[in-house]
Amino acid sequence: MSVRAYQASSSTSALEDGKILRRELLDHDVSIKVHFCGICHTDVHMLHDDWHKSHYPLVPGHEIAGVVDAVGAKVTHFKVGQTVGVGCIVDSCGRCDHCTTGLQQHCASGMTMTYGDEDHISGGYTFGGYSERIVVQEKYVLDIPAGLDLAEAAPLLCAGVTMWTPLKEHGAAPGKTVGIVGVGGLGHMGLKLAHALGAKVIAFTSKPEKTDELIALGAHQVIITSDEHSLNTVKDSIDLIIDTISAEHDLLKYFNTLKFKGTYVVVGGSPQPLPVNVFPLLFKRILFTGSAIGGIEATQEMLNFCAKHKIGATIEIAPLQKVNEVLARLEKGDVRYRFVLDVKNYYH
Amino acid sequence: MSVRAYQASSSTSALEDGKILRRELLDHDVSIKVHFCGICHTDVHMLHDDWHKSHYPLVPGHEIAGVVDAVGAKVTHFKVGQTVGVGCIVDSCGRCDHCTTGLQQHCASGMTMTYGDEDHISGGYTFGGYSERIVVQEKYVLDIPAGLDLAEAAPLLCAGVTMWTPLKEHGAAPGKTVGIVGVGGLGHMGLKLAHALGAKVIAFTSKPEKTDELIALGAHQVIITSDEHSLNTVKDSIDLIIDTISAEHDLLKYFNTLKFKGTYVVVGGSPQPLPVNVFPLLFKRILFTGSAIGGIEATQEMLNFCAKHKIGATIEIAPLQKVNEVLARLEKGDVRYRFVLDVKNYYH
Repeated sequence: MSVRAYQASSSTSALEDGKILRRELLDHDVSIKVHFCGICHTDVHMLHDDWHKSHYPLVPGHEIAGVVDAVGAKVTHFKVGQTVGVGCIVDSCGRCDHCTTGLQQHCASGMTMTYGDEDHISGGYTFGGYSERIVVQEKYVLDIPAGLDLAEAAPLLCAGVTMWTPLKEHGAAPGKTVGIVGVGGLGHMGLKLAHALGAKVIAFTSKPEKTDELIALGAHQVIITSDEHSLNTVKDSIDLIIDTISAEHDLLKYFNTLKFKGTYVVVGGSPQPLPVNVFPLLFKRILFTGSAIGGIEATQEMLNFCAKHKIGATIEIAPLQKVNEVLARLEKGDVRYRFVLDVKNYYH
Repeated sequence: MSVRAYQASSSTSALEDGKILRRELLDHDVSIKVHFCGICHTDVHMLHDDWHKSHYPLVPGHEIAGVVDAVGAKVTHFKVGQTVGVGCIVDSCGRCDHCTTGLQQHCASGMTMTYGDEDHISGGYTFGGYSERIVVQEKYVLDIPAGLDLAEAAPLLCAGVTMWTPLKEHGAAPGKTVGIVGVGGLGHMGLKLAHALGAKVIAFTSKPEKTDELIALGAHQVIITSDEHSLNTVKDSIDLIIDTISAEHDLLKYFNTLKFKGTYVVVGGSPQPLPVNVFPLLFKRILFTGSAIGGIEATQEMLNFCAKHKIGATIEIAPLQKVNEVLARLEKGDVRYRFVLDVKNYYH
């Protein structure tokens, strides 16, 4: 079927409204009218071909929230009218050790990303959510429970689950202290989720003027990273830090705030290697590791948790037709905390 | 009591034979006639004051094997004539969470190192094993079981337990594959211990001519780190790597050989931060961590294991009076795999 989408024709082109082809529904497919689509930093990198793997025309968008408007003959879990989401993954082998244990993002054959990736079902490359409609196999469609605002839910599909996965894996819970480094699209979700999971939440920021805002997002304590005294108040006290910064930065000041055998998880993909001082690893036995987005089951669990706890992203809604302006603002870091494109009012 | 010891009077002095004072035996003290003392790289760093914490006169040595020649009134675990060892630790608070769980090296108040550290019992600074005799509280004395050669046992007290601790903590066992990076004093013990623990053992080396030697030490497979083809034969296959290199080096080639959620442990204290590429952490969920020597109970467990499996260090014995020449050779890396000073034939 022909559907409308905002697309870029090259790494230097602006996004323009136009037509793309989506497949006709197969037995297990769900067709979703896109209402909202969050803008992830990945979209900027992919548009600019920063990772040398983009294909054009490129339709970005992997934080998709919308409503089912048709289902394939054998779809059992979704029905027309249901509010649903699509995140970063639209296909994977389904058989490997990772797919069968809910780690589709680590599929041994490689998952299919929601946009710009080889489409093993329809051929060509996948198109994302800056689009009127998307067709996705039901296994990769998430239910967005009643009670969640669709626009605020959209960023949960990537930013939300990217934080949820390491929080759950490394035991964020009552009695634990969790630090969040970098409070942008990812980090602000980390504050909200860690707070709702019952942990004591520490926000790290270089900007003292953000203190009230970070407390409103869920931080119990705000540490000013340029202030040694402030850093010392949490020395050797944090169980788990999740670091969302995707550029080279100093880790030692954060390692110093971890407890013995504390865990430090990076979720940002710094292109430069991070310089790691090994002495805290030796003498405090720090575990330094990473985490990437989240599997389908974990994403659903996170959405259910967010519905129960009334958690959505803190967003600025922008009309789809303003997407190029909004992307330029995002590149300057001018957003609190996530842009969400209003696709519905433009296309529907 | 006055005892003889090889000591340095400054960071630029050679070691010279002379006298030091040891305390008279307290109720829980054990006096040990030193027979052998291994030479650890730490000795070189401390002699040169590389870490800006050395005190002179300095008597190095924390891989001590000898025979009990007197015991304090309340000593219950040791008797005159028994073969015993002393490693890196001669005191700790005994009460903190780490001391009470066998992690004396991580004592909350700071352990007392065997030499060059503040002596909270006798005052002044501790003196190590390049010495006729040492007096140590029985809690920090290890039994060297019958069947272990005393000279070959000496390096177990530091090099041995430094490898033992992460091997045990991270599950080296039958069915697991363990890689050892850097095959010197530490690494060669890693090969022996991992082999005896039943793991499949991979030795990494830059020197193809070492292959037979590494297999004789316990490696099941030797990987040549400059050869991409060789590295590819173990891609994504190793559960646990222990890295003994104490200088800046590339980690990515080793990360590529780890399985999903594999563990990479550094035991070498590189003074420069190590550049860590975060993508294997994100996409392979690698755990990057460190480990430092070992606690007293673990050291005894390791000695018992070594006695059972007939494992000693591979050593070159040098007369104590040659210590300065031997240290110069060690600095050039001219040793396979550990120098052990023969203290007995000089002093006793």
